[in-house]
Amino acid sequence: MIGVDWGTSSFRAFRMDVGGRIAGRVEGPNGIMQVPDRDYAAVLRRQIGVWLSQGERCVLLSGMIGSRQGWVEAPYLACPAGAAELAASLVPVAFDDARVLLVPGLSHGDAAGTPEVMRGEEVQLVGVLPALGERGTACLPGSHSKWARITGGRIDGFSTYLSGETFAALRSGTILARTMSADAAVDHAAFDRGVARSADPGHLLHHLFGVRTLALFGRLSDAEGASYLSGLLIGHEVRDGLASAAQVPVQLIGARGLCCLYARAIEHCGGTATIMDEDAAATGLALIGQSLRERDAAWT
Amino acid sequence: MIGVDWGTSSFRAFRMDVGGRIAGRVEGPNGIMQVPDRDYAAVLRRQIGVWLSQGERCVLLSGMIGSRQGWVEAPYLACPAGAAELAASLVPVAFDDARVLLVPGLSHGDAAGTPEVMRGEEVQLVGVLPALGERGTACLPGSHSKWARITGGRIDGFSTYLSGETFAALRSGTILARTMSADAAVDHAAFDRGVARSADPGHLLHHLFGVRTLALFGRLSDAEGASYLSGLLIGHEVRDGLASAAQVPVQLIGARGLCCLYARAIEHCGGTATIMDEDAAATGLALIGQSLRERDAAWT
Repeated sequence: MIGVDWGTSSFRAFRMDVGGRIAGRVEGPNGIMQVPDRDYAAVLRRQIGVWLSQGERCVLLSGMIGSRQGWVEAPYLACPAGAAELAASLVPVAFDDARVLLVPGLSHGDAAGTPEVMRGEEVQLVGVLPALGERGTACLPGSHSKWARITGGRIDGFSTYLSGETFAALRSGTILARTMSADAAVDHAAFDRGVARSADPGHLLHHLFGVRTLALFGRLSDAEGASYLSGLLIGHEVRDGLASAAQVPVQLIGARGLCCLYARAIEHCGGTATIMDEDAAATGLALIGQSLRERDAAWT
Repeated sequence: MIGVDWGTSSFRAFRMDVGGRIAGRVEGPNGIMQVPDRDYAAVLRRQIGVWLSQGERCVLLSGMIGSRQGWVEAPYLACPAGAAELAASLVPVAFDDARVLLVPGLSHGDAAGTPEVMRGEEVQLVGVLPALGERGTACLPGSHSKWARITGGRIDGFSTYLSGETFAALRSGTILARTMSADAAVDHAAFDRGVARSADPGHLLHHLFGVRTLALFGRLSDAEGASYLSGLLIGHEVRDGLASAAQVPVQLIGARGLCCLYARAIEHCGGTATIMDEDAAATGLALIGQSLRERDAAWT
């Protein structure tokens, strides 16, 4: 089968063998926002045509391709859910050369009833479920960081933090920008100071002003500013995430560099973290495909 | 005497009579960033020349004019401070036609030792000190909101929140911008919902993502979005400010519209608020001027 993680700005396709291992991969910049005339079928045919000509007949798509802005909208599936529930809720898409199905995103209500959503992260989570066992906590850092609770081998609920986008907006759109080099490398000592600051009394909105005053008083250099701010925001997220985490260690899924920073922050905050396989999405798509085959077999 | 509140983007001069009442006022867009060749003397002469020709001989300047980017840097004075301490720390500026003195800003270390600063707000606070008495809490809402603790009739310490700038950066620089009208009027019901949300479990960074999902699920309209976000951020600030406030009611100082929103949020969070005179800066400058006259008299 073929699994495609098709997001807003990128396209990653995996050819999976029957054992669930990656047998081939294609990556491209054809995110759903970069598809001319929204002709998704043409992009898909171009990217995976060779595999289709070699006999592949089933394609699972995950990510923003199933959003309102994508090919066809795949309604969110409510938690709890795992590979079997996702396989039972796939949304077919018309395509000439193969069976193409969209994996739905997941929704959840937080404690106060405000909705939560993810789209694309669910296949990454499914990919690590076998390693997590019955109970666990997984974190997917990013623009919209997700902290997921695993119970009974399924995704039981999750919480999203706007940390990455808030970092970018504060770094470029506020007075803090004046004392931060735009292109500074990660400074781990400054990052750690930001994480430590997140434990101080006072609200994040107060701590943010401190980034300004530390620079004003010569206690934070231009090269350190962005790393300190990153540590401050990630520290706030991690402390809140750990407070409601069912169990340590936290399983980190995502880009290696960012996962390393999160692991550092989690350990600083008294937790432990494990960085998972970067190809969790491929594994998850394969597991959903396997559930689909089992469903198909049960019906025939 | 003449008092001038000279900030980054505005210039407000007050002619004060010996009783501390406003006898005349001049306002202009000549903030320190809009002064050609940094010729502050020329702007001052043009704006208050008539008063000088009528015999005024003492001018106190407050605000960013005393910052590193201003006319002359007036070093921060450490809290606690009131009119007398500020009058004892005025910084003279060379000017032909009158005695011109800069009012220093105030500094303070928060509980964890991170520096706090204000520049310009101190004269507003001095202006309301007589009304506050021995103990109280004052809040100056804005891009960098200040919550000040008044003890023994002086400014004992303060805490700054980057709420206003964070609101602007999030509103324009993140995914939240997609579901917010740029020019919507304040929607009080949506503002109240945002304030209420700030009391829910979870961190601000989590609540911010909820602004996105409420819009996605049709529970927050484009016209309501910015007011909800404003209420959410102000709610977070106010809850934290009230938690460490020595005493209610909170005295609000600043632009009337914003003070009304803060009063609304404070009452929603179980506190009480009083909105103070918008000309607190003029009163404060007059009180510092009076202290200066007393000092001068003591030396002669």
